[in-house]
This record gives sequence, C-alpha cells and structure tokens, in this order.
Amino acid sequence: MKALVYRGSGNKAVEDRPKPELQAPGDAIVRITKTTICGTDLHILKGDVATCAPGRILGHEGVGVIDSVGAGVTAFRPGDRVLISCISACGKCEYCRRGMYSHCTTGGWILGNEIDGTQAEYVRIPHADTSLYPIPEGADEEALVMLSDILPTGFECGVLNGKVAPGSTVAIVGAGPIGLAALLTAQFYSPAEIIMIDLDDNRLEVARRFGATQTVNNGDGAAVEKVKALTGGRGVDTAIEAVGVSSTFVLCEGLVAPGGVIANVGVHGSKVDLHLESLWSRNITITTRLVDTVTTPMLLKTVQSKKLDPKLLITHRFRLGQILDAYDTFARAASTRALKVIIET
Amino acid sequence: MKALVYRGSGNKAVEDRPKPELQAPGDAIVRITKTTICGTDLHILKGDVATCAPGRILGHEGVGVIDSVGAGVTAFRPGDRVLISCISACGKCEYCRRGMYSHCTTGGWILGNEIDGTQAEYVRIPHADTSLYPIPEGADEEALVMLSDILPTGFECGVLNGKVAPGSTVAIVGAGPIGLAALLTAQFYSPAEIIMIDLDDNRLEVARRFGATQTVNNGDGAAVEKVKALTGGRGVDTAIEAVGVSSTFVLCEGLVAPGGVIANVGVHGSKVDLHLESLWSRNITITTRLVDTVTTPMLLKTVQSKKLDPKLLITHRFRLGQILDAYDTFARAASTRALKVIIET
Amino acid sequence: MKALVYRGSGNKAVEDRPKPELQAPGDAIVRITKTTICGTDLHILKGDVATCAPGRILGHEGVGVIDSVGAGVTAFRPGDRVLISCISACGKCEYCRRGMYSHCTTGGWILGNEIDGTQAEYVRIPHADTSLYPIPEGADEEALVMLSDILPTGFECGVLNGKVAPGSTVAIVGAGPIGLAALLTAQFYSPAEIIMIDLDDNRLEVARRFGATQTVNNGDGAAVEKVKALTGGRGVDTAIEAVGVSSTFVLCEGLVAPGGVIANVGVHGSKVDLHLESLWSRNITITTRLVDTVTTPMLLKTVQSKKLDPKLLITHRFRLGQILDAYDTFARAASTRALKVIIET
Amino acid sequence: MKALVYRGSGNKAVEDRPKPELQAPGDAIVRITKTTICGTDLHILKGDVATCAPGRILGHEGVGVIDSVGAGVTAFRPGDRVLISCISACGKCEYCRRGMYSHCTTGGWILGNEIDGTQAEYVRIPHADTSLYPIPEGADEEALVMLSDILPTGFECGVLNGKVAPGSTVAIVGAGPIGLAALLTAQFYSPAEIIMIDLDDNRLEVARRFGATQTVNNGDGAAVEKVKALTGGRGVDTAIEAVGVSSTFVLCEGLVAPGGVIANVGVHGSKVDLHLESLWSRNITITTRLVDTVTTPMLLKTVQSKKLDPKLLITHRFRLGQILDAYDTFARAASTRALKVIIET
Repeated sequence: MKALVYRGSGNKAVEDRPKPELQAPGDAIVRITKTTICGTDLHILKGDVATCAPGRILGHEGVGVIDSVGAGVTAFRPGDRVLISCISACGKCEYCRRGMYSHCTTGGWILGNEIDGTQAEYVRIPHADTSLYPIPEGADEEALVMLSDILPTGFECGVLNGKVAPGSTVAIVGAGPIGLAALLTAQFYSPAEIIMIDLDDNRLEVARRFGATQTVNNGDGAAVEKVKALTGGRGVDTAIEAVGVSSTFVLCEGLVAPGGVIANVGVHGSKVDLHLESLWSRNITITTRLVDTVTTPMLLKTVQSKKLDPKLLITHRFRLGQILDAYDTFARAASTRALKVIIET
Repeated sequence: MKALVYRGSGNKAVEDRPKPELQAPGDAIVRITKTTICGTDLHILKGDVATCAPGRILGHEGVGVIDSVGAGVTAFRPGDRVLISCISACGKCEYCRRGMYSHCTTGGWILGNEIDGTQAEYVRIPHADTSLYPIPEGADEEALVMLSDILPTGFECGVLNGKVAPGSTVAIVGAGPIGLAALLTAQFYSPAEIIMIDLDDNRLEVARRFGATQTVNNGDGAAVEKVKALTGGRGVDTAIEAVGVSSTFVLCEGLVAPGGVIANVGVHGSKVDLHLESLWSRNITITTRLVDTVTTPMLLKTVQSKKLDPKLLITHRFRLGQILDAYDTFARAASTRALKVIIET
Repeated sequence: MKALVYRGSGNKAVEDRPKPELQAPGDAIVRITKTTICGTDLHILKGDVATCAPGRILGHEGVGVIDSVGAGVTAFRPGDRVLISCISACGKCEYCRRGMYSHCTTGGWILGNEIDGTQAEYVRIPHADTSLYPIPEGADEEALVMLSDILPTGFECGVLNGKVAPGSTVAIVGAGPIGLAALLTAQFYSPAEIIMIDLDDNRLEVARRFGATQTVNNGDGAAVEKVKALTGGRGVDTAIEAVGVSSTFVLCEGLVAPGGVIANVGVHGSKVDLHLESLWSRNITITTRLVDTVTTPMLLKTVQSKKLDPKLLITHRFRLGQILDAYDTFARAASTRALKVIIET
Repeated sequence: MKALVYRGSGNKAVEDRPKPELQAPGDAIVRITKTTICGTDLHILKGDVATCAPGRILGHEGVGVIDSVGAGVTAFRPGDRVLISCISACGKCEYCRRGMYSHCTTGGWILGNEIDGTQAEYVRIPHADTSLYPIPEGADEEALVMLSDILPTGFECGVLNGKVAPGSTVAIVGAGPIGLAALLTAQFYSPAEIIMIDLDDNRLEVARRFGATQTVNNGDGAAVEKVKALTGGRGVDTAIEAVGVSSTFVLCEGLVAPGGVIANVGVHGSKVDLHLESLWSRNITITTRLVDTVTTPMLLKTVQSKKLDPKLLITHRFRLGQILDAYDTFARAASTRALKVIIET
C-alpha cells in the first residue's frame, strides 16, 4: 500500500509498504478513506519529536472503514465506518479511568509517532473499542476528520480548561487552525466577547467570519493595552495560548484578569518566563493538556445537531497520490491561506 | 496608644500614636487583645512592599473587642469579641460577590499595608460587617489569631487550590509556618501521603509531629527522585509551593504527576522558569492566590469541633511592650525555632 | 402615589398611598419607571401566599431611578438608573456569602410580599447596594425588566441547576413565561435537543420560535414515550419542571435518563409522588431553588452582547393607570396569549 | 463445587454445581477465598428482586485468586489475588466512560442477580480487566471484602453524593452496615458533626464507637427537633438516607437545611412523599445512586494508608459449609448484633 513515510529530519517520501496486520486481540485494521495533516506532523519532519523514528508512517487523524478486528474487539465489525481518535486509549488503566486518555499507559499519542499512522491506505489501531467511534448514519465524513484531533484539542485544552462561560470574556492568541478550533467551540458557551489576536490580517479576517467579536493585530506589541481597553481595564476571564512560543505565553500572562485562566494549547519547545512576582497574588489558574479526546462523542452530537460546522476549517482537498503537494500547501499556509487539507485515498 | 511603626527600609519603632477614629459608616474600631507577626511584615521591613509607606502601623492579624462602630454596621456592637480578617471585604463589589475578597475594589489586603494595622492597642477596620467574625462562646482566642491569615492562607491557596483529596498524594515544599498551616489543613481531606520537603531537619521534625507521613531534606538536591520513589514513580497529585523563590517552584514542576496541581502559596519577588517544553502535555494545573479568607467561618467550625488545633503553631508569647523582641525572635526562626509568636496587649 | 394593593383573597385595587421613606441606612427609594406582573402575584391574589398580608402593595420586578439613599449606601446616588432584583440581599449573612441570596436572613423574597412592592410610583428597597444593579448606558430598559425575576429564575433554577451542557438533551415541561425563560437561557450552553412539552399548541408554537428543537403536546399523555423516541430510548439529561403540580413533576421522573437531573422551577402547593422504587438505582439528581439572582450581572452582560433577547417575552404594554387591565390580560393568558406585560408609570 | 443457590421466594440451599467456565474473551474464573452476605441477598430471598431467577447462585462480594482468564484479558494472570467488584463494567460503553459503571450496558449489578455469584467455590467474572482489582502486597484480605460493595456504596451514594465537607453537618438515618459504612467514610472529609439516627440503642452505641459525634434514638419521633437543636436551628448540610422506606426519607426532608443535600442510599420498594410544597424554595438537592465502584482504587489507597479500617464492620466468621448459619446470623442482626459476616471457602 501507499504511505507517507518520515525519513529523518527534513525528509519524507511516499513509499510502498505492506498492509498492516492485527497484532493483539484489541486491534483493528482500518482502511483509510480520508485523512489530513497536522501541525505536529511538520514538527516531526523538522526532527523535533524524539519519539518518532525514521521509517514511521505519519498521520494521526482520519476516517475509514473497518477491514478486520481482533478477537477481543466487541464494538466494531468489518464494514463499519469509523472515526479515528488521535489518542489510543485502553480504557482500563488508572489514567483512562480518570478520563486522561492522553496518558494511557499503553496508548496515548502513539499513532504516526511511536507506531505507524493514518497517512496510508490502511492503519492498525490498538485498543480499537476505545479508540474508534462509529460514524452516525448520514454524517459528512469530511467534517468528521476534524474530530480526530483539532476540534477536541481546541475544545478540551482551550475552552474546557479555560472555563469559558456565558457572559465571560475570552482572548485567543494565535488564529491558526487550532486557535480557530478553540474559537468555534468557545461559542458553545456564549461568552460575551471572543478577542482573536494574531500578526496576520488574513487570519484575523477568517476569525471574524468564524465568530470572533473583536480582533487585534499585535504587530505593534500593544495587545495588552488594546484588550484592557476592550474589557473595562480588567483583562479577560480566559486567555487561550494557541501558538507555542514564550512571547505568546507571556502575552497571555498580561491579558488575564484576576481570577482568570490561562489555558495553554500550544506545543512548546522551550521554557517560558512565568512572572510570579506579579501573578502570585492575582488568583489565576494556568492549565496544560495533551488532548484526551474524551469529548469526541459530545462533539459528534453537536455536529449532528448543527451547533458546530467543522467544514469551515477545510480549505484544500487532495488525493493520497498528491500528498506531497498537500504537505507543501499546508506548510506554506501564510501564502496559500490553508487551514486544514483533506487527503482522500 | 502604643504601636509598632514601619519607618522605612530596615527601620521600625514602637511609637505613641493617637487612637484611630471612625471614618466611614461601615467602620469599626477594635481594641486589640492579641496579635502576631507575619512573614509579610518582614518583607515590608526589608522595603520589598511598595504599597506600604513609612509611618504605617504594621500588622494584619489579631483578635480584640469592638470599641465603637459606624452607623452602617449592623452585625457588631461595642463589647463584642471579634476575629480580624487580614483581608478587608466590602461584600458588594463584583470580586466580593465571586468570593474573591482579596481583590475587593475598596479592600483586599490593606491592613498594615495601605492603612494602619493591628500591632497596636486599637485598629480601625473598614467594611467591618464583612471583615470581622464573632468569636464563639468559650473559644480559645490565642488559637483564633491563627485564623486571621496563616490558616486560611495555607488552606485556600494550598489545600483547596491544590485539590487535596482522600487517598491522594501531596508534597509541601517549605516547612515554615505557612507550609505547616497547609500541612494541618490538608489533613481535612485524608490524603494517603503528605510529604514535607525542606532544608532544615528541625522543621521537618516538627512536620512529622504535625502529621507529615514522609519528610525529605533536599540538601542534596535529590527531592524529585526521592518523591518519585515514594509515589511509585508517578510524582504527587498536589505540589504546594510554600517558600516563594524560583528554585522551589521549579522543584514543584518536577514533583507533580500528570493530571496534578501545583498550588503556589509563596510570595514571589521575581519571575520563575516554567518548563512548558515538558509540562505542555502533562495535563497539569498551576494556581496562584492571595488568600480570600472566605473559609474563615468554616475554619472556625473545624476549630470548635476539634478537627483543627491552631495552637500547635504558637511557639512564643510576648507583651506589646516587648514587640521588638518578638520581631527579633520571629526573624531568627532558624535558631529560635519560632513558628508563630503571640503578642498580648 | 398610585399603587396596586392586595386587599385579601380575590381582591385588589389601585389605591392612593404615601410615598415610601428611608427606614434604615442601607435603604434606597426608587421611582419606578417600568414594572410587570408575575405568576406569583396571581398566587398571592388567590390567597395562597401566607406571608403576604392584605394591604400590601404587590410587585417584585421593575426598573427605575434612584430618588434617595440612606447613609450606608455607597454604590448608588439619586438619579442613577437601576434594575431591581426580586430578591433583597444583605450581602453579609452566611447565606448571602454562599451566594444563596434567596435565604438572606434579613432579606430574600420580601418585596411585594412581606414589604411593599414595585407596582407603584415609588418603592423602598432594603440592602440597596446588593439588591439593585446599575443599568448600563444605552440599555433597553423594557428588556431589563425581564432580569428582575423571570430570566434569572429560568436560568438559575432550570438551566444551571439542570446542568445543561453542549450536546446534551433537555426537556422543559411547561411553555409558560418561566418555561420559555428556561428555553431562552438553556441555549447559552448549546444543548443538542430542547424538547418543549405543554398542552397548548399556541404556546408550543411560541416555543419553536424561541428555539425549541422539538415540541410535544401531552394531551394524549404519551409524552414519556415520545421523548424516549426522540432520545434513542434513553430519556433526557435534563428535565425542567416549570409548572408546579404533581403530575408534571411525575412526568419529569419518567423523562429523565440515568445520570440525569430533574430541575424543579415550579411553585408547588402540595406534595408530589417520588417514585424511588424505580429511581433509587438510576443515579439521578433532583434540585429545588428559589431564585438567588446571583446571575443578574452575568445576564446583563449576555443582553449587552446580544446573546440573549429578553424582549421576546414581552407581549403587552400598559400604563400604571391601566394596571387592572394588565392583570386581567395576564390572568387570561390562554386566550390573550400574554407572556409578560410591561406597565409603565 | 459447593454454592448457595436461590430456589425461589423464601427458599435457599447449598447445592453442588459444576465449576463455571470462560464464556467470552474478557472473562475470568476466580476461586473465591472469602465472601460475605449483603442486605440485598435477603431482598432476593424474599422474592423482591424480579431480575434474579430461581436457580441463581447468590453473592456479589468477595476476594479470591484468578483461576483462568480469557484471551482478551490483559491485566490479570492465573494466581493473581483479586478483589471482586459488585458491579461489572465493560469500560467501553457510554455509561462506563462517564464513570457510571452501575449502568454499563453489558454489566452493572449482574453478579448473584442475572448471572451466578460469589457465594460458591468459583465464580465467572465478565469484563474482568475492569471489574477486578489487584490486591496489594500485604493487604488484609478480610478487610478488602468490605470494598466489594458496602464501603463504596456508603461512600459514593452517601458521602460523595451528599457533598460532605470540612466543617459541615451530617445526619445519617439508619445505623445498619450501610449507614455505618457512610459514617466511616464521611470522616475522610472532617465534617464538624455526624449525627446518627436509629431506633436501636445498640446500633447507636456502635455508631459512637465508629465516630458519630451525636446519636439520636428516634423512638419518640422527635428526631427533627433534636437535630435542629444540635445545629443552631438550621438542620444539616447533608442527610443520608440509609434505610429504604418512606418514613425515613420523609425524615430526611425535615432534617436538611436550606442549600443542603439528601443523599439516598437505601433500596426502596415503593414510592415516597416528596413535600415540594415546602421544599420547592429551599434550594435543596436530592440524589439517588446505584454504586458505581469507581472509587474502589481510592478506597484501597485509604485502607493501605490506614485512613480507613474496614474490619470494624466484621462481626462474625463462618466456613462456606456453614453458610446457612451465616445467613441466619445476618438475618437476625437485631439479636445477634451482626454487621458483616465473613464466609471463608
């Protein structure tokens, strides 16, 4: 089968690989129908993710059809259409029982990282019963690809951890796909203001269309003052960091009101400055989270009831044979205006 | 009247001052019967607290007797015995209504800071109805002095923010009075382990008497490894920072298990390193808090029902005339083994 | 001044009464500009509310202008435009500090019940600082009359107690004004389904316009089966009782799914049957609540940010001189299709 | 093998039965070493539990040793010592993912009810990975039998649902084994008062030894007045119903303070009167729950850390051959003073 393979820092290729086989009673083999590319895949390609060895098939998102299942799988049968979670969860360990699937002792984020992933014709999914979701009759499968990772990440790490609430004020720093996913799902809770902050006016324009009530281009470094002006001098109840660098995290420290939350979503490669000399007395909360995908069933319901339209995030479509073009388009998002790209097999 | 006055960095003196007078309808004048000294008073004396101007009477803790009340005070009458909260709260502003008395727009921590404090024969208490508490019949007033600040601080900022729970594991970094207050009140929730970490074996010995299940002297810098060994390799569910310097906060970052909480209690004078490059994916929470004293009524109940014995914290007693000796004893805690000192007027 | 006075069971009249005067330092006198009639006023007129004595001026809702304030009032001055809460709260007692203003030991629901109310030219408001809210610049005062009682009641007793959540299913039994207030505010949380149940097709038609996703006329007594059919056989996560009789409460017992909540909003005059023989093992929660109006500031924000349009509830308008007509119109809601009637002074 | 078999209403016998066999990949066969009898077993014997057919081996509690496991079991191997949960949980269905194991769509309370139970030499446990718990090295197995059902039931249905908190007041109605289990575990949260109410002075004496701060014999029907007197006229924050009849539930309605919780633990056979005519405005919460046993791992930790001593509940010990005597002793608890009886195989 065809697959997109990581060949070491800076290198990737489409290779011919053997179809994966069942290895454990809880496994399922899924024939991929649609997948996508994540910002994390670009991190891997830069050599930044030590757990991902050269030779690995990338990808941790997608929808498909069950090809075969192990003896222990009870929830799925060949032919079932399924949504793949980016997080594999055994459902049995202490972390899984607490809803922290991200830290499953025999799972977590392993797909396209420690084991072969979804940017291929077939993929092996461990712990299938608790890592796949049935696709409801009549659902739009393209939309559901957004539920493998990006929407639960924006929602769990940003909106839920950030305690977004009716009437509250929210700032989201970073209007890329993940910041926009937080923006879309923050609206579940009817905050009074959602202020989007970025350096790119195109992305801020997209944010306005997606429901931001205010946008701030921080090219002049005046975002804190501008947000204070928009919030009666108080700052925001929730500041969502959706970039992953020190300066944007420090910006959030300046944006948050007393009693507020900084919800970190970004993937950070180095330490940041935490200004406890001013924050120690401000009654704030800071949260970090690798997505657990525990809200996937709920997000499916909101898609089915039309409270959430994930297709807003899809800007480009490719065939699996064109996946190198898809990577190129996604990597040059500033010029291509790509958000999420769909790859059909 | 006699009062302990801050005279600028490094200077203090006992001065003769006029008895305070009612200034607003919500004020009460309280005759102090017992007060104490806080670590924050030492910070002020070093010149570290910009809001506290020379000439200020220090002190934000104590019990006493109502001398007079303004026209708007409905809960207290002259002669009533009262516990003074270190936080003044109007009960009306948006922050007070949320239970964030620490950020009251016309109160907060002002006693012995922005207005004259309790290390004197009399003190003026603004917002008296919501900043004083009636002392129950038969209560031990010395014990209740510990409820002005140190016990609610350890409990709210450390134990409640830290989500201590039955069966959980807790590490407290810093076995000074505030760390010990967290230790005493953490036991309300029956955690499985409370590991106390300090550099002073005397203090760790006190911690064992106060209920610590394990103690670690971090003189060798191996606290993280030792705590991991005591917790099956996981780290702790709750790490309480009760010192206020960068190295102890960074230690907490190493101690906390995935899904755990770092509850900051310490007063920090400079920024700290937040290692988001490892913490971003560990699903942790960091909290900061200036004590709100919203739990004072509850703490009073636990003292009355003998679930909490605040007198454990009291090591020395002085008369108001000896307050300079009291400061000296408290400041040299390493050699005097002072925890809290009571000053009687 | 003119006032609507309760004269004993079945009797009311417009009387000439002296303008109220300040009685305590915390009082304010408010000149009423707009008020309304509540279902509870009809209960009083039937003689069902023992605490309300003949001679009482009715009404506990309205907006107006501060006429005078007592010496202890700090938040308002004559001329300020204010929203009146139906609940008077001292802000100081144990219940107020817990956010249970409804049980304030010197307040609670006293307006138009134990003291004279708002269906008059002037009203005395005790505990003014914590029982009135400033009207924001440019706000629609007619809309804000809905924030005195009906919207916080639907929201706090129905939606918050009912734990309405994104993707969840909700049934509201009773499509009168209070059920519709729950319907409007439930949408803050983006539930997947809101099923409105009533016996009146006109009211159900209104409910559809207000956002109900499904409506059920229970004239045939088959509501449980119909709701089960709409929820995959499970029942609803939240059942809101907005009528106040035994049969509708028992209906909710049949509607609620395992793990769900029955949030009672209705005012009940007699006991109901609780079928613990089936419910004991179903992991359900039942809540009751007299509105606390703690969410009034938040509701004001959602009105200002256009997430909530309270004017949808207003169907008729009268002058104070026509208040007997207003009562008549409101009492015959089935034929007049009245929801809330505005009375201008 | 020997087994205690239900033979229809009023009838039971020790029979010789074939050893159970694995039926599904997730099954385990456990050799029972210790089991016990539950009040629910007596209900079954009266013919009150429709789901339990004649011919069923009774019992849903116990510890034992793994004899064999199915192909899908990954957490246990033959020879492992295990604690059996009274609730079987697949870990995969929507209810299990929400922590509502009691409503597992292919499990729940089935042991000794819908499938053969633990009062035998061997038992088949479905969903073994998520329905058994490893017994820690050195643990007292007799004590752990109390963790199969009675302690999680008292804790989850009574203490957790009842929101017992430091400084709060608790009343427990019913001083039988389940009420005492609630009493023991309520102390995890350091409430100020735990008032035990029963009609039997012997049981109340046991309650005092187990930590009740007050006891009330309700033989005179004056429990409400007595509890009001003990709580400053307010009533209790938490009322735990641990009997299962209408009069004790109605008693709880009278005991609970405004803002409080009635946590139902009792198994009810008929409806009860809910006095909404007084409760509608009292801001109370009523909860029901079939135990989920989600807290079993936490309870194991509290036993290991000596915060909980389950052996207090054990009054009698028998061999499996004497199980009819054990039933007799347990059924005549008033005269035998039996709480829990241990049956060794």
